[in-house]
Amino acid sequence: MAQCNDVGERQLIRRISEILGGIVNDDCAVVDAGDRFMVATTDMLHRKSDFPDIMTPWQIGWMTVAANLSDVAAMGAEPSGVLIAAGIPQDTDLYFIDEMFSGFGECANIYGTKVLGGDLDSTDELTLTGCAFGFVEKDLILRRSGARPGDLLCTTGALGAAGAGLLAWKQGDLKNEFVENLLEPHPRLKEGRALAQSRSVTAMMDNSDGLALSLSDLAEVSGVGFVVTEEALPIAEGIEEMVGHLEAVDLVLRAGGDFGLVFTVKPDMMEAAKKACDLTVVGRVVEEGIWIESKGERRRLEPKGYEHTIVSCEGKNNITARLAE
Amino acid sequence: MAQCNDVGERQLIRRISEILGGIVNDDCAVVDAGDRFMVATTDMLHRKSDFPDIMTPWQIGWMTVAANLSDVAAMGAEPSGVLIAAGIPQDTDLYFIDEMFSGFGECANIYGTKVLGGDLDSTDELTLTGCAFGFVEKDLILRRSGARPGDLLCTTGALGAAGAGLLAWKQGDLKNEFVENLLEPHPRLKEGRALAQSRSVTAMMDNSDGLALSLSDLAEVSGVGFVVTEEALPIAEGIEEMVGHLEAVDLVLRAGGDFGLVFTVKPDMMEAAKKACDLTVVGRVVEEGIWIESKGERRRLEPKGYEHTIVSCEGKNNITARLAE
Repeated sequence: MAQCNDVGERQLIRRISEILGGIVNDDCAVVDAGDRFMVATTDMLHRKSDFPDIMTPWQIGWMTVAANLSDVAAMGAEPSGVLIAAGIPQDTDLYFIDEMFSGFGECANIYGTKVLGGDLDSTDELTLTGCAFGFVEKDLILRRSGARPGDLLCTTGALGAAGAGLLAWKQGDLKNEFVENLLEPHPRLKEGRALAQSRSVTAMMDNSDGLALSLSDLAEVSGVGFVVTEEALPIAEGIEEMVGHLEAVDLVLRAGGDFGLVFTVKPDMMEAAKKACDLTVVGRVVEEGIWIESKGERRRLEPKGYEHTIVSCEGKNNITARLAE
Repeated sequence: MAQCNDVGERQLIRRISEILGGIVNDDCAVVDAGDRFMVATTDMLHRKSDFPDIMTPWQIGWMTVAANLSDVAAMGAEPSGVLIAAGIPQDTDLYFIDEMFSGFGECANIYGTKVLGGDLDSTDELTLTGCAFGFVEKDLILRRSGARPGDLLCTTGALGAAGAGLLAWKQGDLKNEFVENLLEPHPRLKEGRALAQSRSVTAMMDNSDGLALSLSDLAEVSGVGFVVTEEALPIAEGIEEMVGHLEAVDLVLRAGGDFGLVFTVKPDMMEAAKKACDLTVVGRVVEEGIWIESKGERRRLEPKGYEHTIVSCEGKNNITARLAE
């Protein structure tokens, strides 16, 4: 019988969705909570795949909470709590515990919420599962499904910094300015909330797996296509100097960890969106296909980026897969 | 510096609670959701400690969801969704995946809720983190903190069956009637909800770690003590025949996995509680200390039971710890 490593992560998710009677493909699950929606998400991270050796325990804690809060941001919701299930090796120093839990707590606090509880488990490999939830007004919730041809494709902030940090780290350049972008990502809660309140956005998701995969997901759920304008991509300052233009574009498209927001805006609402946050128009929604355009030439943008290496061969099951796949 | 295995799980939790600025000791975290409370819980389970080899993948799925829903039951809440973060070894058969996810889904469905989503990860050891949430009217929520001296101590259903199942399994008696109690636990959602609606209960928690540890937690949070009447314990039928009276009592007190509810009732509200569900009065709330009384003699009930073996030495890090500690 076939095994998990014979199929891709997204194929596996489709199979599981069928068994469970249909899973809505969104950054968070959505539950009716009376006059608002409650949104909830979970993310499992573990030592080998998600926490490079250079990460401090505080950063491990920070990243776990940040990854979960990023999903709450992508729904336009206000976070109202985080739970942490922590599988910890028995020989872990208490210093490590103190620092890691400080990281959990400080990331939650800075974004106006709190670690409310969780579960402790004893595992061979450090394994952390966060769960974050929040609330959003029913008419403001942002999903992946609302993009329509003619809408403008936008992103928050600069792109590629986390990927550049990963590259620098792999090359042993730990003092590189981008390494911090990789290790201490910032969920875009303020931006997500302001965009929801602007009522200008038709679809949104977070960009944790790189732009190419994000657009593939957004296209599938919305039933549309995209054209990205290469010259419009907001490549983080300094990356082109570091790796050249082509590789910089590749980092933006394929490398994960940026945790920006990718969203579509009705053209006549662009002013409202711009007032909500610092954004860049990087392309537009079309009927079908995902394309990247440069100097009038258009090529297909393959949906490749970071997938958890349930799909991959031995040895790729670590953070380098963010670049390699 | 000290390591995790130098301190007990409950001591570690106290340390972490301080770092996080105080964690309320309850089965679920509680969040204001307007006219109701939202409750949320998370539980991590993994191959070595929580899933004996005899478990089918369907049972692994069932148990993961059941353990989480049991915490929702203990708050008097109605479940409204489950998330699953699944860390799956790459060489896992798709048959295993199908069965396990059917187990997740069917357990949720039977209790009136649904697996809404989650996360897939690739790990060396099968590691499953569930997260369940629900809602409860603000004046009906049940916490661990409300027990007062004079209240009656009660439990739902019979006790010790999961422990007897574990014992039988360890002795190679896989056809033993109790093994199913261990492998397919039933969260008491109907009972928890009916007890909440009866307004007769002053404090409640689930009994997943054995009665002795549950009472220790309840006593600490409520600031009270308990006297348990040994003769009143509702030992599941057949256990005394199987292992004798003394060992049967020990299973009830120390072995986890029963997933019943332990709660306290105001004496003048006993009729209302009895109408809500099938219960047994097993003792009473006193000012301090946790005691077990038999034929007029009273001895201290030590707070021992199943703790995750972050506390324990090598080799105990598996499900036997439920009995051994």
